[in-house]
Amino acid sequence: MSRWPAKVTIKEVGPRDGLQNETAPVATADKIAWINLLSESGLSYIEVTSFVHPKWIPQLADAAEVAAGIRRKDGVTYAALVPNERGLERALAAGIDEVGVFMSASETHNQKNINKTISATFPVLEGVVKTAKQEGKTVRGYVSTVFGCPYEGAVPVDQVLTVADWLFAMGIDELSLGDTIGVATPKQVVDVLAEVLRRFPAGRIAMHFHDTRGTALANILVSMEMGITIFDSSLGGLGGCPYAPGASGNVATDDFVYMLHGMGIETGIDMERLTKAALFIRDKIGRPLSSRYLQTISSSTEKDM
Amino acid sequence: MSRWPAKVTIKEVGPRDGLQNETAPVATADKIAWINLLSESGLSYIEVTSFVHPKWIPQLADAAEVAAGIRRKDGVTYAALVPNERGLERALAAGIDEVGVFMSASETHNQKNINKTISATFPVLEGVVKTAKQEGKTVRGYVSTVFGCPYEGAVPVDQVLTVADWLFAMGIDELSLGDTIGVATPKQVVDVLAEVLRRFPAGRIAMHFHDTRGTALANILVSMEMGITIFDSSLGGLGGCPYAPGASGNVATDDFVYMLHGMGIETGIDMERLTKAALFIRDKIGRPLSSRYLQTISSSTEKDM
Repeated sequence: MSRWPAKVTIKEVGPRDGLQNETAPVATADKIAWINLLSESGLSYIEVTSFVHPKWIPQLADAAEVAAGIRRKDGVTYAALVPNERGLERALAAGIDEVGVFMSASETHNQKNINKTISATFPVLEGVVKTAKQEGKTVRGYVSTVFGCPYEGAVPVDQVLTVADWLFAMGIDELSLGDTIGVATPKQVVDVLAEVLRRFPAGRIAMHFHDTRGTALANILVSMEMGITIFDSSLGGLGGCPYAPGASGNVATDDFVYMLHGMGIETGIDMERLTKAALFIRDKIGRPLSSRYLQTISSSTEKDM
Repeated sequence: MSRWPAKVTIKEVGPRDGLQNETAPVATADKIAWINLLSESGLSYIEVTSFVHPKWIPQLADAAEVAAGIRRKDGVTYAALVPNERGLERALAAGIDEVGVFMSASETHNQKNINKTISATFPVLEGVVKTAKQEGKTVRGYVSTVFGCPYEGAVPVDQVLTVADWLFAMGIDELSLGDTIGVATPKQVVDVLAEVLRRFPAGRIAMHFHDTRGTALANILVSMEMGITIFDSSLGGLGGCPYAPGASGNVATDDFVYMLHGMGIETGIDMERLTKAALFIRDKIGRPLSSRYLQTISSSTEKDM
């Protein structure tokens, strides 16, 4: 059966994309303990923080302490976002394995999110990518608002392609296409991916869906059918974008893994350990998370874990 | 583009499958007002209640009053469940358009849900179907636990086919296959539907998914790709099954319509009116509903509606 892949790589973005959107700060020690639980769950990639200026995202002001405090497990890539050369310096000093650079496909979101026009963003990221590669790091590019912008509405696919062209030309290794406000439906995903995959190989494209309107797993399904095997998700459905009004969480890693395992698709993840990590962060956040899966095990399994 | 249908029929089961699972009763007048709002939303089919004995589902003890009180709109089918001949008499007296009969694919769930073995259920339903058809009604069959049973776990597809064979042989017009506890994943849906569609035409099969683990829209997507165009859903994600521990709501009509309209698939439904109906019942229930879509509009649009 070749309709779906045999194996999928899940990139856990909860410690960054999830926690950056929580108003109540999570203690540094709790972040570290959580990431250590994630490392033990079988995940092969964890985006642990972002080296943005604390003025912009105070929730991640402890980026260096988190990176220094976690127990690094062999075979796991520990990644972080960096907005500029200063952020990159901090990330390199912290021994981050992979660097993520980010921008938006829509002008207004790019300006609100990183305070620059799209064209002014390119040279900044170009410098970051160049230095990171010189330092022997792999680099991941993120494009936000691929399927819609909270300020501009529909985003023409040409804008996505332009940004993607630039980022790959700079030398990024992989590109993650983000449905930042969770508006995409499967037909749009098929249409956008058809254009993207005409230019770039599927193995270098990741999809980053938010489940704001419940369509994330359906969008993942059609993406897999087009050859995509790398997906970003956030445990428990934590996350969103502080500059995108109405955007709720990333697709929940636990819902996603439940679906994949039910379809016989390998992830390398141990569901029981993953659940343990989800319950840990839920308790620290102190409110129910938006994951569906987690709600089914809360009352029954929780006591035993 | 023929991968997905041009048009889908949504059968709203919230007033029955949703409200039967609410512990706080909803006033009869509120149910009537809600169903009237649903009628105005463009839905063509509303399952308004169940004529089971009030001892079993006290939430629907007002079945006759609800059926008598609603404003019937031309072109809308008003349906109700009936468990036996006595229920059918009450449904006929109430002027219900279509009758639904129900049983489970798994022995234990059937016994817990309707207090009979599967083989003892057949003759009861046969009598109901016969009388209903004599009275000129169409009849819908429901099979529960098609993709898994809360008591028995996996349910062999042969049990589903056996029950389906019996129900169609009795003369039902349409069969709704229920993922009562929301465990199905797309691969399982494809596997089960492949067997079902070998025997019965797609036009007579409906799918009834619960979103307990977040997979409902992905399951609907693959069902559409196999030719299914009739789906049950519940506005706001209300619902479940009182005899299936851990089963949370039906797939939310509003999430579902959002996805379909985003894909250019016609439903005949006006999203604004549907949202108005969702906010109405949410206020009566008095807690946030599980629909994702509804959460995005609560803070912004609500005041204007």
